[in-house]
Amino acid sequence: MTAAREIVLYDTTLRDGMQREGLSVSVEEKIRIARRLSDLGIHVIEGGFLGSNPKDEDFFRRLEGEPLGNAVVAAFGMTRGRGAKVNADPKLRALARSWVPMVTIVGKTWGLHVEKVLRVSRDENLRMIAESVAFLRAQGKRVIYDAEHFFDAYSAHADYAIACLRAAAEAGAETVCLCDTNGAALPGRVAETVDAVVAAMAGTCRVAIHTHDDTGCAVANSLIAVDRGADCVQGTINGYGERCGNADLCAIIPALKLKMGLDCISAENLMKLTDTAHYVAELCNVSPDTHQPYVGLNAFSHKGGMHVAAVDLDPTTFEHIDPALVGNEPHVLVSELSGRATIVRRAKELGLPIVGEKDLADRVLRHVKAKEHEGYHFEAADASFELLLRGEMGMGVEFFRLESFRIIDEKREDGQTVSEATVKVLVDGDRFLETAEGQGPVNALDKALRRAIERKYPSVKDIRLVNYSVRILDENRGTAATTRVLLDSSDGRESWGSVGVSMNVVEASWQALVDSITFGLLRQREEEEA
Amino acid sequence: MTAAREIVLYDTTLRDGMQREGLSVSVEEKIRIARRLSDLGIHVIEGGFLGSNPKDEDFFRRLEGEPLGNAVVAAFGMTRGRGAKVNADPKLRALARSWVPMVTIVGKTWGLHVEKVLRVSRDENLRMIAESVAFLRAQGKRVIYDAEHFFDAYSAHADYAIACLRAAAEAGAETVCLCDTNGAALPGRVAETVDAVVAAMAGTCRVAIHTHDDTGCAVANSLIAVDRGADCVQGTINGYGERCGNADLCAIIPALKLKMGLDCISAENLMKLTDTAHYVAELCNVSPDTHQPYVGLNAFSHKGGMHVAAVDLDPTTFEHIDPALVGNEPHVLVSELSGRATIVRRAKELGLPIVGEKDLADRVLRHVKAKEHEGYHFEAADASFELLLRGEMGMGVEFFRLESFRIIDEKREDGQTVSEATVKVLVDGDRFLETAEGQGPVNALDKALRRAIERKYPSVKDIRLVNYSVRILDENRGTAATTRVLLDSSDGRESWGSVGVSMNVVEASWQALVDSITFGLLRQREEEEA
Repeated sequence: MTAAREIVLYDTTLRDGMQREGLSVSVEEKIRIARRLSDLGIHVIEGGFLGSNPKDEDFFRRLEGEPLGNAVVAAFGMTRGRGAKVNADPKLRALARSWVPMVTIVGKTWGLHVEKVLRVSRDENLRMIAESVAFLRAQGKRVIYDAEHFFDAYSAHADYAIACLRAAAEAGAETVCLCDTNGAALPGRVAETVDAVVAAMAGTCRVAIHTHDDTGCAVANSLIAVDRGADCVQGTINGYGERCGNADLCAIIPALKLKMGLDCISAENLMKLTDTAHYVAELCNVSPDTHQPYVGLNAFSHKGGMHVAAVDLDPTTFEHIDPALVGNEPHVLVSELSGRATIVRRAKELGLPIVGEKDLADRVLRHVKAKEHEGYHFEAADASFELLLRGEMGMGVEFFRLESFRIIDEKREDGQTVSEATVKVLVDGDRFLETAEGQGPVNALDKALRRAIERKYPSVKDIRLVNYSVRILDENRGTAATTRVLLDSSDGRESWGSVGVSMNVVEASWQALVDSITFGLLRQREEEEA
Repeated sequence: MTAAREIVLYDTTLRDGMQREGLSVSVEEKIRIARRLSDLGIHVIEGGFLGSNPKDEDFFRRLEGEPLGNAVVAAFGMTRGRGAKVNADPKLRALARSWVPMVTIVGKTWGLHVEKVLRVSRDENLRMIAESVAFLRAQGKRVIYDAEHFFDAYSAHADYAIACLRAAAEAGAETVCLCDTNGAALPGRVAETVDAVVAAMAGTCRVAIHTHDDTGCAVANSLIAVDRGADCVQGTINGYGERCGNADLCAIIPALKLKMGLDCISAENLMKLTDTAHYVAELCNVSPDTHQPYVGLNAFSHKGGMHVAAVDLDPTTFEHIDPALVGNEPHVLVSELSGRATIVRRAKELGLPIVGEKDLADRVLRHVKAKEHEGYHFEAADASFELLLRGEMGMGVEFFRLESFRIIDEKREDGQTVSEATVKVLVDGDRFLETAEGQGPVNALDKALRRAIERKYPSVKDIRLVNYSVRILDENRGTAATTRVLLDSSDGRESWGSVGVSMNVVEASWQALVDSITFGLLRQREEEEA
């Protein structure tokens, strides 16, 4: 193995990752995740099953037009049905017809499964593998064979397990993937098995590894397989997957690149790792794991004073890698100084420098901390932060002032639900009263507010709300829980986030709405003045 | 290595585990954790530092009277200060004076740290190790030497690292522990290093392993060390620890016992593992990780239809161990990826068997899939699923029927926000009209509904909403997005989840509320009838 050896990264977040309990994303969200995977430099993006459900069909259709750089899109399927003709198998035909250049088909390799689950002879299973691979190859597809339960299969009957891989390789599969489907294998077994497979396949095709975390060894098993000659790793962002999850690519990528000296993604892309992990978590509506290796908020935290002092002296004493390499940063806990420095840095970034005003920075910091204590969160709400900062600097803006709003939400006898909002606002001394109906109370409120101010600010129509999300902060208080609303808005060129917090979801939405529109109008005014 | 080889389990939850960000337990809670560790059959319980803070002093004092079975209590400390007399070191004296039979002292082994952090010569460091161990031995203590940063130390200067271990062993330490303090090591390096240490120490003392999860390999590294001859493992329950955590004993113990055939705790005690993990999480006020290996709620869940069918046939096809061996159980989830077998199995679990009715199962499956396409999600909403199932079986229940509701949400001139809900419901032919104010529209609706039905169902007050969450499904539709609400309710004994979906958050909440209360009333009626 030379240092130039390149490892293929195969992401299955959108297929195997979605098996995680409670996870469910829309087609639009899957597209956004695929874009970020391509941006990170992932080589193969497995999009899902083809031919099994309408949502995945729709996703693949939409993905065709997406520019995904060098990333190859793969679709997932199975070997043909038992005793059937391969070219009559509707799912294989759907895969063959599709635009995707690569198909991964899973098949049996374990005698127990062949006989008990599939209920076919071992020879028929070999034919199912070979014919399915050959059919897809003949249709011009690149093919990967996923050998289900490979490690159990190999322990039970090594010769037959290898025969299955050979059937796939001889039929034209470019890669055979050793799947530890039920996550049973410990590192020692993985090492021995991969050694045997790499020797047996001897250059006829690439060997890949696919592990699950049922023993807590998914990442280690993947790295061990690579160490023993596998050169493609299947995994998911944040280790999402059913039961205990799949192998976490966010831990595998930095280990390959920084610790094993193997090529996979560029150093520049590696710095996007933390952002990518958090972005995918956000879209999946899963709180990021603060203790996750490399990308977790606490992955480089320092607690004891001794550690902090030692890190100041020489970071290599207590940090196993430089956190900046994976786009993370050290996190010193309970430190007011780092807080003020952050405020000053952000203000400068926003073009509102706090120069020589220690008091101002302290005041902003206190205000931010007080708001965060209530549940506000400014990381994703740059617009709300800038408005707060301007307020403290005496540069506050107010394009309109609310007198009152009233929302009526009715579910009528006929089962129809109707939402109607009335707002009364003051703009430059004039009073406007407007009512609007909407799909839900917040939508109605949004429409009524826009109507009320559009006579004074016709350009408000250029400000579009593109994203609306709701987080319950103290979930265990039932329906009286505190609610945080995040809004993303855009004027087509720039986009910005705002936040609102209240026990009343409508009030929280109102706050975010006001910040969002105020910020948009402010940017428009700045442009006119420029 | 024979099958009779016994591995010593050394728990450091109460010391290293407590370094986890945000964790803090009382002395009383530490006592309760120690009792459970002893009950699980842990061999050594490290209680904390001695001589550094009053809380740990108090804990050790209280622990003296505790009957902890065969568990040995250890206290943690450091080698003597540089250039000082060992018998003048106040912390070592406190350790020597204490009742605890075992002391673990940490010391330097890595040249970088010896020179940069400790700022002593390498020879003085060897003397600090030897004198500290000898002093404690002379006071009758069993001594373990924790070699901090051992893997980095060994890579940098193997001879010196081994010399430090030898100094400890020759002074009477019964165990030397190889600590991967910053969690940097990958499996290959751990294997090589442990091989070298075991050969070098050649039976002069026991070799232990202590890993951190910064590369996601803590469990694997511990198991690999054992495989290479270490016979004591240090870890924490649930892998608690600073940054990314320590090695998780809940994953290590079953691997040693069930997969590596090594003796550590009895089969009977192993069945307490899941309970112990959840108990410790509870006392630490950390939500149990539902995806945790072996002990997580989802560790043995089955989702895809194909998997469930196979498990019914023979559990070994998809379960890597029998969950009962670690006190856990399989868990079948109903989701859009499920097939008919999942529906049949889940129905059986609910005591509503679908026998010989293929059509019914298909009908339920179609209904579930259609609802999930709209955005419903039944995995976390068992109550809504059971009500749907009952409906299809002709066993539907309706304790009340909504005629209409109306919500008025006002933000008044004085800035006050008020939510008021009015519901009109029919119960057994009687019509009830009730109004209530609440903290937000959903809370108001919840209160009004309860008022309306409590005259007929006074026990509705026993049904508490414990969890409320909102998920925006197509976030990019701004405030007109589809909303999914999940509610968890409890009657103090059992808890259940329900779901509602609508573009109107109030309507979605209403659906979930109705399912939640209907299900609670149904359970109450079933109990009365039983």
